[in-house]
Amino acid sequence: MQRSQLADAVRYDDNGLIPAIIVSMEDNAVLMLGYMNDEAIQQTLETNTVTFWSRSKGRLWMKGESSGNTLELESIHVDCDQDALLVRARANGPTCHTGNRSCFFTEVEG
Amino acid sequence: MQRSQLADAVRYDDNGLIPAIIVSMEDNAVLMLGYMNDEAIQQTLETNTVTFWSRSKGRLWMKGESSGNTLELESIHVDCDQDALLVRARANGPTCHTGNRSCFFTEVEG
Repeated sequence: MQRSQLADAVRYDDNGLIPAIIVSMEDNAVLMLGYMNDEAIQQTLETNTVTFWSRSKGRLWMKGESSGNTLELESIHVDCDQDALLVRARANGPTCHTGNRSCFFTEVEG
Repeated sequence: MQRSQLADAVRYDDNGLIPAIIVSMEDNAVLMLGYMNDEAIQQTLETNTVTFWSRSKGRLWMKGESSGNTLELESIHVDCDQDALLVRARANGPTCHTGNRSCFFTEVEG
């Protein structure tokens, strides 16, 4: 699939969103899960900087726009039924707002 | 967080679901993205075999129930706002129904 086709080719949910798994290009560590709409996909591709639709802010959200901890796009894969994205990125600083490298820092124990 | 608390502690979406990123315990490769409801979480923890809520089937779906390509649970992490799960698993065979190891086998090019 070509980049120019992506925003039209994927299947969005009832809210017009598709989940995007963000992994580090360095070691494949999962950094966060965000959501993109068609505009976020297009902005991500145009700027090479990962941009989401923020469900809490209700607007486009370039990751790191305030913190500076941006995610530089490396590659995108789409899954077999085209309703999820896997985004490899170079993380500038910690990805989680808590200061952790990844948002998935809490292990379920027992 | 303890396993016994997980199903109650997470935040489900309007459909009662939470996305679960499945990664290989061997090399952290992302294998698929599925969705769990509280029953799927409980069954996954009780059986140590990854179980989803299938949105297409409209029922609990133990991954590999027909193909035999099950996912043995290794660990679960919850993200910072408790609305996504990262599940490490041992994959018995290919995870994707296409026969690919991962559902994310289509790269977006250009």
